[in-house]
Parts: sequence; structure tokens; C-alpha cells
Amino acid sequence: MDATHRIEGALAAAVASGEGRGGPPRLAAAIRHSVFPPGARIRPQLCVAVALACGDDDPALTDAAAAAIELLHCASLVHDDLPCFDNAAERRGRPSVHAAYGERLAVLAGDALIVLAFQQLADCDSVQPARIARVLGHVATGVAMPHGIAAGQAWECEPRPVLRDYQRAKTGALFAAAAAAGAASAGASPSPWLVFGDCLGEAYQVADDIRDVIAEPQAIGKPTGQDVAHGRPSSATEFGLDGALRQFDALVRGCIEAIPDCRGANALRALVRAEARRLVPLEMTTAHAARSPALLQEALR
Amino acid sequence: MDATHRIEGALAAAVASGEGRGGPPRLAAAIRHSVFPPGARIRPQLCVAVALACGDDDPALTDAAAAAIELLHCASLVHDDLPCFDNAAERRGRPSVHAAYGERLAVLAGDALIVLAFQQLADCDSVQPARIARVLGHVATGVAMPHGIAAGQAWECEPRPVLRDYQRAKTGALFAAAAAAGAASAGASPSPWLVFGDCLGEAYQVADDIRDVIAEPQAIGKPTGQDVAHGRPSSATEFGLDGALRQFDALVRGCIEAIPDCRGANALRALVRAEARRLVPLEMTTAHAARSPALLQEALR
Repeated sequence: MDATHRIEGALAAAVASGEGRGGPPRLAAAIRHSVFPPGARIRPQLCVAVALACGDDDPALTDAAAAAIELLHCASLVHDDLPCFDNAAERRGRPSVHAAYGERLAVLAGDALIVLAFQQLADCDSVQPARIARVLGHVATGVAMPHGIAAGQAWECEPRPVLRDYQRAKTGALFAAAAAAGAASAGASPSPWLVFGDCLGEAYQVADDIRDVIAEPQAIGKPTGQDVAHGRPSSATEFGLDGALRQFDALVRGCIEAIPDCRGANALRALVRAEARRLVPLEMTTAHAARSPALLQEALR
Repeated sequence: MDATHRIEGALAAAVASGEGRGGPPRLAAAIRHSVFPPGARIRPQLCVAVALACGDDDPALTDAAAAAIELLHCASLVHDDLPCFDNAAERRGRPSVHAAYGERLAVLAGDALIVLAFQQLADCDSVQPARIARVLGHVATGVAMPHGIAAGQAWECEPRPVLRDYQRAKTGALFAAAAAAGAASAGASPSPWLVFGDCLGEAYQVADDIRDVIAEPQAIGKPTGQDVAHGRPSSATEFGLDGALRQFDALVRGCIEAIPDCRGANALRALVRAEARRLVPLEMTTAHAARSPALLQEALR
């Protein structure tokens, strides 16, 4: 079974487990709305890819970890869209949860998704149950204080956020957690994978900052110019577009170098390169670099 | 070490674990504000009491479970106080978290508290790590869909909530989880303790409904008449005060009968009786029963 089937199967089972049996139907609907139809599922894909690279000898635990990571990501999107944060009426071309179900159910859907995430680890048919607590620890660290995504979002409420702390917590932490949880699910040492995930997450965040400035809204399925509009810290606004593009390339290289010796190392390296090109396509770089010849030369080197 | 010291020690360590080390200080302060100074700590006390009654042979796991339960309770209070729910400016005579730190940090503090709860189970020095997943499952069920406290709160967003489903989920579920997690931490079968906790939680909810109608605000440290004001389902408004008082007594009896044979059974029974009297003191019942002689006779029988 390929990773996408595994992930969607695990998420479908997770969401179904909270439905029916006399629970409140509108909250159940709001939770389903938050998780389906699928987004890019980048984080659970990363979790499964790392587990596979490490041998994946406890696939039920891997799938539970991947689902947990994605449910936490969905929870963060639901709460980020709330009126008190981004006040976003849309998400992936559909009404956001608070727009569709009201603010109260959006708060509760986020809460319930966080709990549902951890429930996956309690309920999975792991063949190595002694690993569960370690996987749980990595998953929790990715969203917890002081460096997880809740901390990342909270940097937006501080008078003088440190850009790197903000980005690492807001995005990098859950990527690092996904990679470490994948390794731990397969019984491998999570340490190198924390570095790998951290670099990859930071690369995604910088790519997002870049796309917020230079992409066409239709191309990325969401409005651009949001960082400036919301006064959010961003690599592109802090270092300029050229600086942000250089940072992105350095992060992708760091990612590839962090991959330890393992069965699936080559496949993972190829995946990272392909993903980097998808995130910041050459034509996007070229269009910008046409206005900046030095960068064009570097990009084509 | 008595239960209160164990619980406060575990909570102090949990909250401190998320502070400093480069995390956002205002979220850290909002989390601390949510957990300290201590409230009644009824749920973690219940968790520790049940574990002790069952032998408590893995106290680190018991303490982690008790802290997790209380952190989830604190999270629910922070989110319940939000403007979109109760819009409460005060909690236990102090500003509520959103009043003190703003709505965004209140949303994030609730989220971070939920995560911190589960982190306790990942990080504890359990001597029986194979029990952790089971304890995690009980703790999660108490707050999850379809019957945990997130579901309970969501019944307030349904057009026609079923009173008993609402009460069991909103209060009973976390009591049941506390009792079951205490038993599971000590390696005992959680089944009878789920019944015990469920009855006890429902008794607390009914007592709360009763106190909302007949107590003096000073006596219970919060405004009364809130159920009617917010149109919330309540035993007292649904069955009348006499009906609610009868329901309370039946629940306390059910609780006592549910306690299985174990080392600490007698001590627990005495604790339940004392707690019932504290919740609905005789003078409160008597003052009301003076207007309802049949009930007075029953109360004094």
C-alpha cells in the first residue's frame, strides 16, 4: 500500500472513530470539514517516508504517528483561521471551519483534533508498544511549548518576535516532529531526523514567505501579500527576496546533508530535490531573477 | 507525600517544562495563570485516590495521569471563558486568561495545555511503561469526541441537546477518565472505576446545577443564575429543584455502590460521603426543604 493510501486510511478511521454513537453531530461535521478533502499531507508523507527509509517494522505505529501529525496540523489551521487570528473566511477554496460552523465549533474542532491526534497513538495496534511513549513525546514536542507550533503562533502575540525562533516553531517544529516520530516508529534513532525535519520545515516556511511575495494567487490557491498585510515576520520582508531565495537553497542543501545512512537515503534525497523545485519552481525564480542577473547565474549554476 | 503535594509537584514541573529556553514569554505566563494558584483539583485528587485504593505501584505514572487530567480541565476552563462561549471576565476571583492576556493567547494557552497534558505521559518515569498507552487512552477518551468534554461543550451548539448526554460529556467524562486512569496507572481493571467516575461526575454536575439556583454567590465564589441566563440545559431547570436534589442523592449512592472490593474501598466511600455534604451542604438543602416538607423528611431519613 502506498503512503497516500496509508495516510488517508488512517485519517478516515481516526475521524470516523469520533462520529456517531450519540456524539454532537455538528462538531463531528466540523472536524470532518477540517480534515477532508485532503490537503497536501506533506507532514504525514514525511513521517511515512522517514519510517520507510528506516525499515518501517511497525507500520501501525507509523500510520498512527503520521495521522497524529496531520490532525495536529489541521487543528492549527482551524485555530489560525479564527477571527482573533487571521480571520480567514476561506481555506483551500472552501469556507473555513469558523465561517461554515461558527466560532464556537471552530474552537472546539481544533481542541478535539488535538485530542484525536494523541488518541491515535493510544489506540494503534503497534507490535512494539514500548515505542509508543517515545513517539508520543516527539509528536507532542512538535506542537508544545516552548518550541512547538503553539509557541510559533504565540510569537505573533509578542512585541518583538525573533524571526528564526518564530519560523522554527511555527513550521519547523512539526516537520522535525514528523521526521523524528517516523524514525522512532521504526525503532531508529530520531536525532539525525530532527535536524533533517527542522531544515525541511524551515525551507517550507521560507518558500511560503517567497511565494507570498512573488507567486500568483491562482498558482498557490490562496491570497498573496498576507505577511505584509498582517505585519507578520517573514524572510522575504526581513532579508529581501534575493536573501530569502539564497536561504531557501541553503536549507534544501542542509536537509539533504542531514539524511543519515539508511536503506532509503537516495530515494529521500531525490524526493527533497523534487519537492524543492515544486515549492519554488524554476520559472518563478527565473521571472524574479530576470530582474536580478547575479541571482539568475547562481540559480543556473 | 500526600496527594495534594504530589499533584501540585507534578503540575509545577509540567508548567515549568514549557517555560524559558527561548519560548514566547507571554504564552508561558498565560499558561501559568491558567494552572495556578490551585483550584479544587478535584479530578486529579480522584485519580490519585483511585490509584492509591488500587495499590499505586507506579506512582510516577499516577502523578503524570493526575497532572494530565487537571491540565485538560484547565484547558477547558480557558476555552469556556472565551468571548464566543461564556465571555467570562473573571475566574476564581481573578481575571480570566482572555481578559488578562487577550483572546489569541487564551486560545493558544488552551491548545498548549492540552498538549502539555499528553506530554506528561510521554515524559514520566514510569516503572511500567507498557501501561502508558492504556492510561493515555483513558485520559484522551475523557476529552475526545464523541463523549468527552469537547463533545459536552459542543452540545451547547446543538439545537436540541439531550440533557443527560450533555452532562455526562461535559463533566462526567473527565471524572470517569480520572478514575479509570488512576486504576490503569496502578495496573487495575478500569471498568468498575469508569462507572464510579461517571456517577461522581454526574453528581458534581447536578450539584453545580443546584448551587447555581439556590447557593449564595459568595458561598461558591462565582455568580449564580448562569444556566438560565445562558439558556444552558440544567437538571434544576429541567426537573425542578426537588427533582435535582433527588437525582443528586441517587448519584452519590450509585457512586458508593460502584466502588469495587479493594484495599482503600472504605476510605473512598467516606470521602465520597464527605464530598457530597460539602457540595450540597445540609443547611442548603434544609433551607430549601423548609419550603418543601416532603423533601425535608426524605433528607433527614
